[in-house]
Amino acid sequence: MTNILITGGGGFIGQKLSQALCRAGSIAGNPISGLTLVDIVAPKIPQSEFAVAALTADISHPATCPALFETPFDVIFHLAAVVSGAAEADFDLGMRVNIFGTLNLLEAARAAGNAPIVIYASSVAVHGGEEPRIVPDGVELNPQTSYGCQKAVGELLLNDMSRKGYIDGRGLRLPTVSIRPGRANAAASSFMSGIFREPLQGEKSNCPVGPDFAIWHTAPRTIIANLMHAATVPAAQFGYNRCLNLPGRTDTVAEMIAAMTQVVGPEPERLITWERDPVIEPIVNGWRNHFRPEKAIRLGFQADRSFADSVRWFMEDDHRDKPA
Amino acid sequence: MTNILITGGGGFIGQKLSQALCRAGSIAGNPISGLTLVDIVAPKIPQSEFAVAALTADISHPATCPALFETPFDVIFHLAAVVSGAAEADFDLGMRVNIFGTLNLLEAARAAGNAPIVIYASSVAVHGGEEPRIVPDGVELNPQTSYGCQKAVGELLLNDMSRKGYIDGRGLRLPTVSIRPGRANAAASSFMSGIFREPLQGEKSNCPVGPDFAIWHTAPRTIIANLMHAATVPAAQFGYNRCLNLPGRTDTVAEMIAAMTQVVGPEPERLITWERDPVIEPIVNGWRNHFRPEKAIRLGFQADRSFADSVRWFMEDDHRDKPA
Repeated sequence: MTNILITGGGGFIGQKLSQALCRAGSIAGNPISGLTLVDIVAPKIPQSEFAVAALTADISHPATCPALFETPFDVIFHLAAVVSGAAEADFDLGMRVNIFGTLNLLEAARAAGNAPIVIYASSVAVHGGEEPRIVPDGVELNPQTSYGCQKAVGELLLNDMSRKGYIDGRGLRLPTVSIRPGRANAAASSFMSGIFREPLQGEKSNCPVGPDFAIWHTAPRTIIANLMHAATVPAAQFGYNRCLNLPGRTDTVAEMIAAMTQVVGPEPERLITWERDPVIEPIVNGWRNHFRPEKAIRLGFQADRSFADSVRWFMEDDHRDKPA
Repeated sequence: MTNILITGGGGFIGQKLSQALCRAGSIAGNPISGLTLVDIVAPKIPQSEFAVAALTADISHPATCPALFETPFDVIFHLAAVVSGAAEADFDLGMRVNIFGTLNLLEAARAAGNAPIVIYASSVAVHGGEEPRIVPDGVELNPQTSYGCQKAVGELLLNDMSRKGYIDGRGLRLPTVSIRPGRANAAASSFMSGIFREPLQGEKSNCPVGPDFAIWHTAPRTIIANLMHAATVPAAQFGYNRCLNLPGRTDTVAEMIAAMTQVVGPEPERLITWERDPVIEPIVNGWRNHFRPEKAIRLGFQADRSFADSVRWFMEDDHRDKPA
C-alpha cells in the first residue's frame, strides 16, 4: 500500500496528477492507500476510491512539513514552487519557497526514516549561460534566472540526500508545458499556453515574443505520464545523478500556431496580438530551446510526437466546452 | 581604499592570505585600508601597516554576518567551511555552516548595498559521479560528498546574486592543497599534506591509500596568488559563470614522494606507513584527479610547475626549522 503526498497539489499539474492517480488506483504496481494534497490555496479533491486529504499550508513555514509527515509517505511529488517570473521579480520570495521550502520538505522526508521516493519538479530553466546551444545530458547547470538557480540547488540537495540514503530522489527537468489549462500566471512562459488556450476559447491573447521564438515544450498529458513513470524506474537506473532533462519538442511559435490551425482551422490565430514585452523577452531568451535528453529516453520517459496532439488533448481535457 | 574581510581567517589559507595582503599593502592596485579576519577560533593578527581586526564568531549564527557588515567591505574572501570528512560524518553540521553560513554571508553582502567582490573558495569536490574521467570546463557538477554538494550550492547562489548585481562573485574550485602547514585536520585529503609534512619534520605519517593513488593538487603559494588574482580579473571576463576550476597538477602519491626525495634525500620517505583506511578511500576515490581548466588559464590564474617546488616552498615557508 502506497501513501502519496503532492506539494503544489492545487496547481494545474498537481490537480491533473491527483486525478490520474485516483483513476489509476495504484502506482508502480502498488495500490494507493491515501493521497494528501497540500498547497497555499485549498486544493480541489478529485473523485477517488481511497482517502484524499487537502491541506492549505505553506511548506516554507518551518512548522508545516514536520506536521504533514506525522504519517509517513511512500511517494512524494514535490511540485510546489514560486514560478519563474515571480521568483525573478521577488528574489526573497523565490529563495524562501523554492530553497527553504524544498529544504523543509526534504528534511521532513529524511526525518520520517523510511527513505521515501521524492519526485522533484525541476525545470529546463536550470540551463543557460555558457552551455551549448543544443543541450546534451551532463552539462554544467548555468541558470540565468533566480528560479533556475533555486531549482538547481534543489537538484543538488536531492542528489546528496539520495546518495546518503535519506530519500530516494528523482528530479525531472520539465520543459515548458503547453497547452496549460486555467488562467495566465506569473511564469515567464505563461504566454506559451495563453496564445493557444485563450484563442481556442474565443478570447484574445498577446504574444510577447516574435513568431520565430523557439521553445522546448511538452503537453500536460505527457508530463503526468512522466511524473508517474518516475516512481516506477528502479533507483539504480538513475546512476550517480538523480536529475535529468525530460524529453520535449522544439518548435517555434509560428510552427505551433500552424499546428493549431491544422487541428481547428484559421479562426483562433486571428485572436493573437503581437506586442513585445521587455520584461518577458530577456527571461525566455535566456532559456535553452533544444535538448538531447538521452538518459531520460533510455529510462523510458515519453516524448511528444507533435504540437497538434497537444491542441487535440487541450480540446478533449481542458477546453471549457469539452465533452462531459 | 579597500576594506577586506576574510571568513575562515584563522585557517591556514586565511592566515597565509592575510600575511600576503599585509605584505602587499594593496589589492588590484588599490591600497588596503583595513582587514577583518573572522573564524570560530580567534585568528592570529599578522604584522601590518593598516588596521587588522580579528573576530571570533560563527557565520552560521544568524546574528553574526549583519553585525560584521556594520562597516561595508569592498572585497570578501569566503574561506570558512566545514571540511570534507567532517561534512560527510555530520550532515547537519555541514549544511549549517557550508550552506546556511554561506547564505548568511551572501545576504549580508547584498544588504550592504555596495555589490562587494566576493571570492568564494569552492572545491574540486563538486566534481564526480557521471562526469568524464578527465574534467573539462562546463560539465554538470555531480558531487559524491556532502561537502561537494554544499560547495556546489554556494556556487549557484554566488552566480545568481552576481547576475542580479547584488555582489560581484568569483568562485574558485581549489585543488587539494599540498603541502599544507599545521596539523592533520578532518579533511579527507588531510593525508595528502601529512605524508610529506610530518616526515619532512622527522615524524611518522600514515598513507591511507596506495602509492598509485593520483590527485589534483596545488601548493599554498599558488593558491594565495590565485585568490589575490581573482580580485583583479574584470567581472565581465568571467562571463555567465563566475565559478571555475583552478589550475593544478595531477601526480600519484609515488610521484610526489619521488619529488620529495629528489629535493631532500631519502630519509623522509622511510617515515611513511601504508595502512589503507576504509573511510578515507571511498571519499577520495570519488574525486576527479585530472582536469583541463582552460577558462582559468585564459583568465590568468597560475599553475604549479612541479611538486618539487611545493616541497622547497614548504621548507622555506612552513618547516618548523625554516629560516627566520
